[in-house]
Amino acid sequence: MTQRPAIHLLALILLIFSNTLSTAQTSADQKSVDAIKAVINAQRDAWNRGDIQGYMEGYEKSDNTVFVSGDNVTRGWNTVLERYKKSYDSREKMGQLEFSDLEITMLGKDSAVVLGRWLLKRSKDEPHGRFTLIFKKTKSGWRIIHDHTSSA
Amino acid sequence: MTQRPAIHLLALILLIFSNTLSTAQTSADQKSVDAIKAVINAQRDAWNRGDIQGYMEGYEKSDNTVFVSGDNVTRGWNTVLERYKKSYDSREKMGQLEFSDLEITMLGKDSAVVLGRWLLKRSKDEPHGRFTLIFKKTKSGWRIIHDHTSSA
Repeated sequence: MTQRPAIHLLALILLIFSNTLSTAQTSADQKSVDAIKAVINAQRDAWNRGDIQGYMEGYEKSDNTVFVSGDNVTRGWNTVLERYKKSYDSREKMGQLEFSDLEITMLGKDSAVVLGRWLLKRSKDEPHGRFTLIFKKTKSGWRIIHDHTSSA
Repeated sequence: MTQRPAIHLLALILLIFSNTLSTAQTSADQKSVDAIKAVINAQRDAWNRGDIQGYMEGYEKSDNTVFVSGDNVTRGWNTVLERYKKSYDSREKMGQLEFSDLEITMLGKDSAVVLGRWLLKRSKDEPHGRFTLIFKKTKSGWRIIHDHTSSA
């Protein structure tokens, strides 16, 4: 009979300990989610002030960074920057970029996937679609390493 | 002067130890990559024998499993299974599925991203494009939790 209270106490300690660990993880995850949201919002803001270089800051500056769209794969931060500069050579073409329905799912402590909608408001058209972004926590902060974008 | 050899020995031990750890990680990663490849090949084989349920085994059986295509998001293993059964109600429509250019990147020890090309060989058309798959290591093995597919 004397063992019972000891076991109950042990169970209680374990419960508190595991809850504390779990809360610490939740809080770390929330911090990551907030940091990722901030990167995405900064990209949108840069785009909407005509700052393509600023928009590109959200991506990892690596030759391995991957951009998928339709049946095309483009690789490398510099390659994509140059392509954007050519394709969006006026504020009119850039339009106003809007993101919505963001869903950020942590895949571990240093990687996450983001699903979202994009919409480009322009005077002549309003292209829109979905994106899947893979974020990694790098030395410079959370950065996109893989972007798969599709349109309606 | 007597310290030098000791420091060299310590450095050597650390080097061997970190190499061993790194080799163990590489070997674990290779095992995961092989397991993921096997899931994808099993999906292709199931599709090509007209077994949609077998094809769906590659996805996590969860209401949260996400399928993105164009501007559409579909959620849930059962929902997608029913949709596939309706859209591909004959072997002719299913055609022969081919995957190529698979690139599997580990995001941690229990998650990975796969980039690849898909091609459906049918008598009347040959639709093709790219896919980004997010795999998680689950109790049942490696399973897709997020599929973003786009076409030419």
